[in-house]
Amino acid sequence: MTYCLGILLPGGLVLAADSRSNAGVDRITRVHKLALISKPGERVIAILSAGNLATTQAVVTALQESLGSGDLRHDLHTARTLFDAANMLGGKLREITDRDRSYVQPYGDASASFLLGGQIAGERPRLFEIYSAGNFIEASDRKRFLQIGETKYGKPILDRALSADMRLDGATKLALLSFDATIRSNLSVGMPIDILRYQADSFTLHDTTTLDDDNPYWRDLRDGYADGLRDLLANLPLPPRSWDA
Amino acid sequence: MTYCLGILLPGGLVLAADSRSNAGVDRITRVHKLALISKPGERVIAILSAGNLATTQAVVTALQESLGSGDLRHDLHTARTLFDAANMLGGKLREITDRDRSYVQPYGDASASFLLGGQIAGERPRLFEIYSAGNFIEASDRKRFLQIGETKYGKPILDRALSADMRLDGATKLALLSFDATIRSNLSVGMPIDILRYQADSFTLHDTTTLDDDNPYWRDLRDGYADGLRDLLANLPLPPRSWDA
Repeated sequence: MTYCLGILLPGGLVLAADSRSNAGVDRITRVHKLALISKPGERVIAILSAGNLATTQAVVTALQESLGSGDLRHDLHTARTLFDAANMLGGKLREITDRDRSYVQPYGDASASFLLGGQIAGERPRLFEIYSAGNFIEASDRKRFLQIGETKYGKPILDRALSADMRLDGATKLALLSFDATIRSNLSVGMPIDILRYQADSFTLHDTTTLDDDNPYWRDLRDGYADGLRDLLANLPLPPRSWDA
Repeated sequence: MTYCLGILLPGGLVLAADSRSNAGVDRITRVHKLALISKPGERVIAILSAGNLATTQAVVTALQESLGSGDLRHDLHTARTLFDAANMLGGKLREITDRDRSYVQPYGDASASFLLGGQIAGERPRLFEIYSAGNFIEASDRKRFLQIGETKYGKPILDRALSADMRLDGATKLALLSFDATIRSNLSVGMPIDILRYQADSFTLHDTTTLDDDNPYWRDLRDGYADGLRDLLANLPLPPRSWDA
């Protein structure tokens, strides 16, 4: 499994991915699920992947190898808008799954899904979720976060606490707590976390890092949350001895 | 969808079920998913249902109508142990689904699953989960809670906070917070909540109630949790401005 999360805010984007890949519990590895493409000052595009690893790597690598080719269907450097970029990704995904699906079927599921976020000069930052079918939806002020992979455990904290007026640092804190909840409950989602904070109109990907288990902020955050939640639960009132009271 | 939860503790059981049934969002009703069977002083059996409503009602009603028949395969009053009772329920589920499955298939899924908990004199309290296939597993000191239906949103809080030394009132508080998390995130799980606290060796089902949205304890609990969680999240440290710091 995988957990990838994208958050769209007026001030920019927060994008994060876990690193675990597993083909059965006896075959667990670390992989890159966050791919970055940029032309400094003009465009930044981040692609986050979930699903069959051969499919996601084929899609992302093919798009990377098409960069600079001038191919209007596959070169993300020629995409005029991020909507065009999402279309390119969806189209490449259809190509690969059409080619591979029948061969993979006897062994498993060839399908994959993606988040694509970033900014192209002339547009505001945008965020898309590309489904396994190659079609896609876009985040908006009514739906500020998109998830792929193991989406349930990390969703409640975002539903409760994410708000439109949040800055990138507050959203980054929530994103990491959403990963903490997911990693605690699903063994197939694992550290490290690749995380990108993208400041609108900066057109750089410098604020990207990999958080491992011993990162001091990650440790403080999850310990602080666990301790605070334990105290909160202990202090909530017990039910009445009799419901009729 | 549905959410049913059973918790097994040395001091007894906490069992709870939501009440929403839906066949599409335009057809939502309230139903009973907690059925109680007892012979005061000798046995108490609670059955919690998830899945196809026609299937679950057929199974539970058939078992209720067999009470007192002396039929050793179907009369829960003749079950010598709760393991026998789980076997009866699994067997009846197989009968019903064998009979109905092919007729229901064109319209939807006929499958169902159950929790069965209680106590029969001579045994400690026990708790079982009966799968759609009619086979089942039992809760133990290593796996103190079982869930059916929408299980994910309500699981993390139990994983974090449920402990073996907890009393029934503390476990009831956690059970209701688990329902709060589920109801907030899945529209197809809804109030009221039927909840049973069973004190070991009491052999009565008197401590059963239905909590509606305006129950004062339920309101205090979920408001206190929401407020406390908001404060906790606000007070956790923000990430460093630079990850290299």
